[in-house]
Formats: sequence, structure tokens, C-alpha cells
Amino acid sequence: MDKGKLYLIPNTLGDTNPFDVLPSQVKTIIDSLDTFIVENSKAARKFIKSISPEKSQPSLTLFELNKHTQPEDLPNFIKPCLEGKTIGLLSDAGCPGVADPGADIVKLAHQKNIKVIPLVGPSSILLAMMASGMNGQSFAFNGYLPIDKHERKSEIKRLERLSKDYNQSQSFIETPYRNNKLLEDLCNTLSSDCLICVACDITLDSEYIKTQTVLQWKKNSVDLHKRPTLFIIHKA
Amino acid sequence: MDKGKLYLIPNTLGDTNPFDVLPSQVKTIIDSLDTFIVENSKAARKFIKSISPEKSQPSLTLFELNKHTQPEDLPNFIKPCLEGKTIGLLSDAGCPGVADPGADIVKLAHQKNIKVIPLVGPSSILLAMMASGMNGQSFAFNGYLPIDKHERKSEIKRLERLSKDYNQSQSFIETPYRNNKLLEDLCNTLSSDCLICVACDITLDSEYIKTQTVLQWKKNSVDLHKRPTLFIIHKA
Repeated sequence: MDKGKLYLIPNTLGDTNPFDVLPSQVKTIIDSLDTFIVENSKAARKFIKSISPEKSQPSLTLFELNKHTQPEDLPNFIKPCLEGKTIGLLSDAGCPGVADPGADIVKLAHQKNIKVIPLVGPSSILLAMMASGMNGQSFAFNGYLPIDKHERKSEIKRLERLSKDYNQSQSFIETPYRNNKLLEDLCNTLSSDCLICVACDITLDSEYIKTQTVLQWKKNSVDLHKRPTLFIIHKA
Repeated sequence: MDKGKLYLIPNTLGDTNPFDVLPSQVKTIIDSLDTFIVENSKAARKFIKSISPEKSQPSLTLFELNKHTQPEDLPNFIKPCLEGKTIGLLSDAGCPGVADPGADIVKLAHQKNIKVIPLVGPSSILLAMMASGMNGQSFAFNGYLPIDKHERKSEIKRLERLSKDYNQSQSFIETPYRNNKLLEDLCNTLSSDCLICVACDITLDSEYIKTQTVLQWKKNSVDLHKRPTLFIIHKA
């Protein structure tokens, strides 16, 4: 028997028309599937309904993959693939496997020789890099910075050095209610000619993307409180 | 007078139906524009025609941005924005500004306070990361590796160390006719338990994405000759 495949299905980055940010192929694939690995069942059902309103919701099988999931449950989630069924891995927001718990399932799929097919969708990391005007030939996403004041300061310094020594743009994120504090920390820690890109509410109506030097940010800031934001720095 | 905006417009990654990999918003935006910054006029006209067949081709204004473009020409390319016109920056393949010459235009747009709006489309870097099953919480794209044998070897070693010390997946590319040689070099340089993801012909019918250890690649390789490929390594 042929194995099923694992589709990686992106989601929107917030309250926006899904067809503005997802290609029609995403609908075609969701229409064809009845088994999904999801972060949260309720949110997933709502999303699937918005894409495929005609699909029967009671006939869906959903496995929840989130911080409460035990590692020993993962093989059960992809067992349907071994039995010939093609399934979907669906994010709550953005792209599965990137800044998201899905990577463990994908890793397991490779170990079991299951074909993994990623679908195109919005990634705040990629969209911010595109719109930053910084070096897109070499860039890194570093996740969250440390919370401890001294560790954070030395990590910001390290990323600034990396951006200069390797000409590599360095991006990272913060818990949204601490975004203003992070921008302040960046302005107080980086050299005044270091570039900072602030990319906020990406793909939403309130989208705000701006690259300027530390000196310019000090004169001309923005309120990022509770708005999903990606930060990128680069020192020439 | 209000300034125009700069849309960043992705393209397909090769010979595929554009609507399989681009959201409908890309068509809406292309339909609404008549001025584009492009890598190659002929390829751009063909792409625009495939998306907006009803658009008048003679009325398009195209500026060519590629390795032949002089830096002093760039301000002319975004002058229409300063005069109130919204324009598009269009890649030959994938996403503008990422592994692509468009970043210089975006940088200039920020300096001139022109609003930059990135649109969703296929990026081989992001799609490969999603499908690799490696750490997507922290990853870097490093562009091309050095050609010199010794420099290349030491760069591969450096990236392996980085992937381990910072738990950061490390991706890179090669000129497609040298892909097989690079996979060979990786297998001969990395430790036998280091993971390599080979992501080839992404979004095309011939797509091939596989993550396995160096030891497994040595036993079970693949022909990558002249196929666009992204490599990612990670040592646990």
C-alpha cells in the first residue's frame, strides 16, 4: 500500500480575508482532506469552515498538537499516513513548522519516509525580511531574546556584531505586550547608526513596516503595544 | 500630494500555474498597476500577461533592476512614488528582496518615506524550512558557500558548529550545476549524525524534499544536477 502524504497548510496572520493571503491550492487541498493535525480544534474548525464551507464538519478527524501534547502521542498523529491516508498539518497562524510546534511532526514524517508537501502562505518572518530593505542574501531568525536584563543586552550586542561581521540581517520577536520595551532596549543598546526594521500587524489593515536608524527611532517612535511585531537589525 | 506605495510582488518558482502559489490579491494588485520595477522586461511582461491577460501591455512602464543597473539609476525608479503613483517591484522568481536584487530599492523607499507593502508568495527558503522538520524557532539563510575548497570546508564546519551551539538550522544554496558536488562535500565534511535537508524543485511537479542523516545520505543519495535546491543542516 502507498503511504499518504503530509501537507503543511498555512493560515492567515489574523483577521483578514484568507483568499487575500492564501493561494487557491490551499482550498483545493483542504477540500480534499478529512484528517488534520491542528493547534486548537475550535480555531481549526472555524478556519476550515471559512475555506471550505461545504465540508462536513462532523466527519473531520482532528489531532491537537500544542504545548499540552505528549511526545509519545505524535506517532499516533501520523499513523493515518502509514495506512495510506493523506493528512494536513495546520497552523493557528502563519506557516506550520516555522516559529510553531509543527516541526516535530514533520521530523517524524521524514523518519517514516512520508512525503511532506509545504503550501505557500503568509510568514511574518519572510514578509518582514522582504519589506525591510536589509540584506536578504543572508539573514537569521533568532526567535525570542532573553528576558533577563543583562543577558538581553549582551544578546542584542552579539546580534549587532553578527550583522556587521557576516553582513547578515538578524531578526527576532517579543511577547507583544513587551514590544515597546524591546524597541526601547534596542535604541539604548545598539549603535546610533544601526538600522532597525519594525514590522507590525503584517498583512492586516493596520500593517506598519518601517526601517530607520537607531537615531531616527529615538526621534520618531511608534506604539507597538500588543501588536504582533517582528524586529530586524543590521549594522552596515 | 500623497506619495504612492511600493508593492513587493512575488513570482512563481518555475513552470507552474501561478494561482496555485499566489493569492488572488496578487492579481488584484497587478491589475491595478501600470509601472513595475522588474529583473527582466521580457519575462516580466510574460508573467503579467499570465496574471492579467486583459491588461494593455503597451501602456506598461518597466524599469529593469539587475546586475547591469547602476546605483545612480535607482532614485529614478522610485520617482513615480514621490509623484503619487503606486508601483510594483516584481521578482523573476520567488519573493522580491530575499536572495534577490530588490532589497536596494526597498531600502531607498524607506529612506524616502514610501510605504512598502509585501505580498505573499512562494519562497524556497521558507518552504524548505517548513518542510525540513528542523528547528523553525531559530534558523539562518547564508546564501552561497565559498567556492575555494578549503574555505568551503571550514564554512561547512562553522555552520555545523553554529547549528549545534545555538540550536539554529543553517540553510544555503549552490549554483545548480554544482549541487551534486555540494551534497558530496557536505557528506564528507559533516559528522555522520548531522541532519541534512535537501529541498529541490520546490512547488514544481518534480518537488523532492528529504531530511536524513549524513550516514543515510551516503547510502541513499539523489541526483540534484541543474535542479534548484536548498540545503539545510542541523546537528542536535
